[in-house]
Amino acid sequence: MFLVVEKYGGTSVGSVERINAVAARVAASHQKGERLVVVVSAMSGETNRLIALANEINPDSEAREMDVLVSTGEQVTIALLSMALNKLEVEARSYTGSQVRILTDNVHGKARILGIDDAKVREDLEQGRIVVIAGFQGADESGNITTLGRGGSDTTAVAMAAALKADECRIFTDVDGVYTTDPRIVPEARRLDQITVEEMLELASQGAKVLQTRSVEFAGKYRVPLRVLSSFEDGPGTLITHEVRDMEEPLIAGIAYNRDEAKLTIRGVPDEPGIASQIFGPLSEAHLNIDMIIQNVAQDGTTDLTFTVNRGEYPLAKKLLEEISENLAAREVAGDDTLAKIAIVGVGMRSHSGIAAKMFEALAREGINIELISTSEIKISIGVNDKYLELAVRTLHKAFGLDSDPTEESLGHLGGE
Amino acid sequence: MFLVVEKYGGTSVGSVERINAVAARVAASHQKGERLVVVVSAMSGETNRLIALANEINPDSEAREMDVLVSTGEQVTIALLSMALNKLEVEARSYTGSQVRILTDNVHGKARILGIDDAKVREDLEQGRIVVIAGFQGADESGNITTLGRGGSDTTAVAMAAALKADECRIFTDVDGVYTTDPRIVPEARRLDQITVEEMLELASQGAKVLQTRSVEFAGKYRVPLRVLSSFEDGPGTLITHEVRDMEEPLIAGIAYNRDEAKLTIRGVPDEPGIASQIFGPLSEAHLNIDMIIQNVAQDGTTDLTFTVNRGEYPLAKKLLEEISENLAAREVAGDDTLAKIAIVGVGMRSHSGIAAKMFEALAREGINIELISTSEIKISIGVNDKYLELAVRTLHKAFGLDSDPTEESLGHLGGE
Repeated sequence: MFLVVEKYGGTSVGSVERINAVAARVAASHQKGERLVVVVSAMSGETNRLIALANEINPDSEAREMDVLVSTGEQVTIALLSMALNKLEVEARSYTGSQVRILTDNVHGKARILGIDDAKVREDLEQGRIVVIAGFQGADESGNITTLGRGGSDTTAVAMAAALKADECRIFTDVDGVYTTDPRIVPEARRLDQITVEEMLELASQGAKVLQTRSVEFAGKYRVPLRVLSSFEDGPGTLITHEVRDMEEPLIAGIAYNRDEAKLTIRGVPDEPGIASQIFGPLSEAHLNIDMIIQNVAQDGTTDLTFTVNRGEYPLAKKLLEEISENLAAREVAGDDTLAKIAIVGVGMRSHSGIAAKMFEALAREGINIELISTSEIKISIGVNDKYLELAVRTLHKAFGLDSDPTEESLGHLGGE
Repeated sequence: MFLVVEKYGGTSVGSVERINAVAARVAASHQKGERLVVVVSAMSGETNRLIALANEINPDSEAREMDVLVSTGEQVTIALLSMALNKLEVEARSYTGSQVRILTDNVHGKARILGIDDAKVREDLEQGRIVVIAGFQGADESGNITTLGRGGSDTTAVAMAAALKADECRIFTDVDGVYTTDPRIVPEARRLDQITVEEMLELASQGAKVLQTRSVEFAGKYRVPLRVLSSFEDGPGTLITHEVRDMEEPLIAGIAYNRDEAKLTIRGVPDEPGIASQIFGPLSEAHLNIDMIIQNVAQDGTTDLTFTVNRGEYPLAKKLLEEISENLAAREVAGDDTLAKIAIVGVGMRSHSGIAAKMFEALAREGINIELISTSEIKISIGVNDKYLELAVRTLHKAFGLDSDPTEESLGHLGGE
């Protein structure tokens, strides 16, 4: 029998009405003969309500107690969804993370899954029951409640699918799949039928909000077939695959962007071993998230280093870098907090040359100045002034043939009229 | 070191402000050197909010899922109280019923405690931590979440106190102790410094709402010293003891009443073995709560049987009794749903005679007709028309010397002025 793990996020279970809708969808899959494990998040707004309560009492709450508190959010949802399923005369049984049990380390607030004891779940599935599991949570070796941090429910779903060797893991969200780029910027953006794990990882880490990086990594590692689809409308969604696509497929899978970036440059740094750690050590201690790092070939015994940070962390990063510059007797520090980052991603890059050239050419034609370049095996990231963001994304989307085919679409319409 | 289990109900932890107040009180006891385990209920209103959500989804929810749902209420409180204690720089750690673990049978919604594994709690106490435990909940042998039903948090507290052999179990409520009777009816009612378990049991089962019967029984069985006191004001409360008081103490500890009663009589029932079960069997099957049962000596081969039920169940009970009457060829069924029940309770009755006579005499002087009488070793219950309720309680309160001593009170006042 086809075994599926489905995950519904906070918006998908945000009200009694939505929970009933999810129950109806799950019950329908059950009727079709699928065996189902359903992972749910807290109802949207609930986690924030709980955190606000905690902050009112103690803005500096212990992470252990915060986990005890917020884990109630998903516990409410599993009970309500099971009740909704039982009303549809489908036998369902709920489990918290501790009950399953999902064993994690003891890093409260961002625990990592160490193992899953799926005995109860298997038994319920064999009895024909639907199993409803609280996402985002687990328990450490001593039974303390832990939470997995951002995107934790996705991780729970993928980990359950891996443990159960499920045929598919479906992540239901408020979008109907992974797009070639953000449709709010490029109306011609298309939903991808499939995308590889590696591409998805590059897109996710570049700011595409559909899936959390961690759950994709997990899916890649355990080869879980992952599908992203909408809980609000029917449709096939996007399948995240583990195989490289046919040669016929486009070279570029999608374009990601992040508007809120800033860049910092330290110039005239002595070109000596250990310099990079003397620069990035203090920044890392201040918990700054450094993204792209670019160092050019040294000249006259000194070098220039550029890196990007989130725009919100720019002032602190600049202040620290100026101190570092003084210590290292570097020449100067320069910065700019109007940066946007754009990345084109595609496994096809591995076997095709000329993609970077094509990218730079397309942008040059529009007069867009490229401030930074960084590449990986299947990705080319650039930094541009943020005023060019939309134009740059639209230009690249068109240049790499990602725009939806108007002929095809009108043919589709003709057929029905 | 003095080990105390304290229990705070829903009103006592009903807001952030109240939780902070409880934390301050607990922290103060901790500073005094007491070792503390704190059992808390859900914030007032929370359980009802959750039940309303469940009913919206499925009015006929499975008890197992209902327990998963409502148990989140206490889980929220334990986290918030621990946070509030940590803010006061008192180390605190929270546990759900499953975590402690409080092992129960699997009767969801009204589970019974089978055992407590107090190892973690003891370890925390030894480390100088305050332990905060979710009341009202536990887990069965398979790890399913269970709840203990009405008054469950009191039961949790008493059971914890028994397991830990605590020096005292303090139940904090919105009243400052056990009174000789309801002060709303008798302004002269006095708070009792102490009362025996047996008296408390009789008072509780007669409608005194301070403590749930079950927790008092538990306290009696395991000889846990139990104290009822107010979480809103300081005071010694009432100690529920396991020893009979001194001879000097009043014969009667208190007077309980219940206004919402009804009586039913079946007359001319054949006086044969098995008749009582033929009458009460069907009533019990309909889940009617039968309270007092009175049967007089038979006359002419038939007998009359009277019993009381809650007023809300009167119509159903009457209908059933009429069917039973027909089957048994009894003479007739009579009933009255304007009954009130009053009970005087005191262990002193065991060694003193004439208490019933004194009770009946006092009521007769006020022209109050007694409709039913039922007695136990330490209690005399009567049924009267409910219009006499207040008058009867006041009369008995005075007759048995329970009114507060006006001389004493005015002396107290003189001292300060």
